[in-house]
Amino acid sequence: MGLMRRKEFSMSENKQEIAEFLREMSFGFLGTVGSDGACRVTPLNFVYGDGYFYFHGSLAGEKMKHLKANPQVSFTVAKEYAIIPSYFTDPLLACPASAYFKSVMVRGHAEAVSDLREKADAFTLFMKKLQPEGGYNPINPEDPKYAGQLKAVALFRIVPEEISAKFKFGQNLNDHKFDDVLQGLQKRGGELDKETVELMHKYCPHHAGS
Amino acid sequence: MGLMRRKEFSMSENKQEIAEFLREMSFGFLGTVGSDGACRVTPLNFVYGDGYFYFHGSLAGEKMKHLKANPQVSFTVAKEYAIIPSYFTDPLLACPASAYFKSVMVRGHAEAVSDLREKADAFTLFMKKLQPEGGYNPINPEDPKYAGQLKAVALFRIVPEEISAKFKFGQNLNDHKFDDVLQGLQKRGGELDKETVELMHKYCPHHAGS
Repeated sequence: MGLMRRKEFSMSENKQEIAEFLREMSFGFLGTVGSDGACRVTPLNFVYGDGYFYFHGSLAGEKMKHLKANPQVSFTVAKEYAIIPSYFTDPLLACPASAYFKSVMVRGHAEAVSDLREKADAFTLFMKKLQPEGGYNPINPEDPKYAGQLKAVALFRIVPEEISAKFKFGQNLNDHKFDDVLQGLQKRGGELDKETVELMHKYCPHHAGS
Repeated sequence: MGLMRRKEFSMSENKQEIAEFLREMSFGFLGTVGSDGACRVTPLNFVYGDGYFYFHGSLAGEKMKHLKANPQVSFTVAKEYAIIPSYFTDPLLACPASAYFKSVMVRGHAEAVSDLREKADAFTLFMKKLQPEGGYNPINPEDPKYAGQLKAVALFRIVPEEISAKFKFGQNLNDHKFDDVLQGLQKRGGELDKETVELMHKYCPHHAGS
């Protein structure tokens, strides 16, 4: 059951959908392991480019200590689209209550980026993602106004060893229940419900006719 | 600098603000460590009640294997309110670009809940949080329609050893830059910008007059 479900929801083979989702999301959750073997989950802004996940931070701090002790990391990005109440498909039991979401999970190792030119390029990627409207001088390590800052901030990239993705939008439902959820979302009409309906159609090809 | 900043943004002593944020958020990110010492960050719905964090899942699956190998976990909940572009406070340099957010980070250990009555009570907490409008029969282990399901699903609780919180809303800015950010957000008028302005005022008491 576990395996079957994972397969139904998996988007791991669809690199384009994964990249699009990673462009849309501004932050994710980094899992690091300390020298005591305990883990820590840190939320942080990231940018995905050239096959790497970049993030930055203070040179002090627990996260950096963890990365020095153990470069193996996990990085997860997720967005919840809809809480699906049980009564959409069952008038009596709470069990069908669920949530529809997209998630991307990365396993890899983190490397410090210390070359100032590479750092400047990575921060430029960051700015293009999070501030696409511009409004700043180009980030250049030869600009004395940037050089000190570039040296002072820690920049890391995650080299992915495995990227998996799960987009859950009712692929496990039979036709009847799938239609019930569609109707429930259309009737509820919440902020993301219309988009959730579109994603249900998009990711459930065997329900294409409904 | 790191310590000073952490102190400025810390809400760790404010249990009421933390509990309110945890009620509002439907999902968080669980960090577990496998027998190979590598970590995994899993997004999941949760409910915080009676001092515990409850989550459920399939009895199969990697997360459950990790929890059996090592019950030490990290659990983090975060919400991003605003990307703050650099030009709100600096017309030239990209460096002040930032993000305002709330995050709560928990360190603790996970325990399986196997008593069916306790399981039913925890799932009731879940439903009250995620489906407050009701629409299901009370979850009762003596109801044969629920008993099998209650046995089949794995339920865990995190016993927190430490809960820390960071709410970042410009507490580190001087009065002049604080006002610049306020004006930038008011002018931009995005979905969460009005609420972000309110939170800046709320969490920056030394800026109360601005």
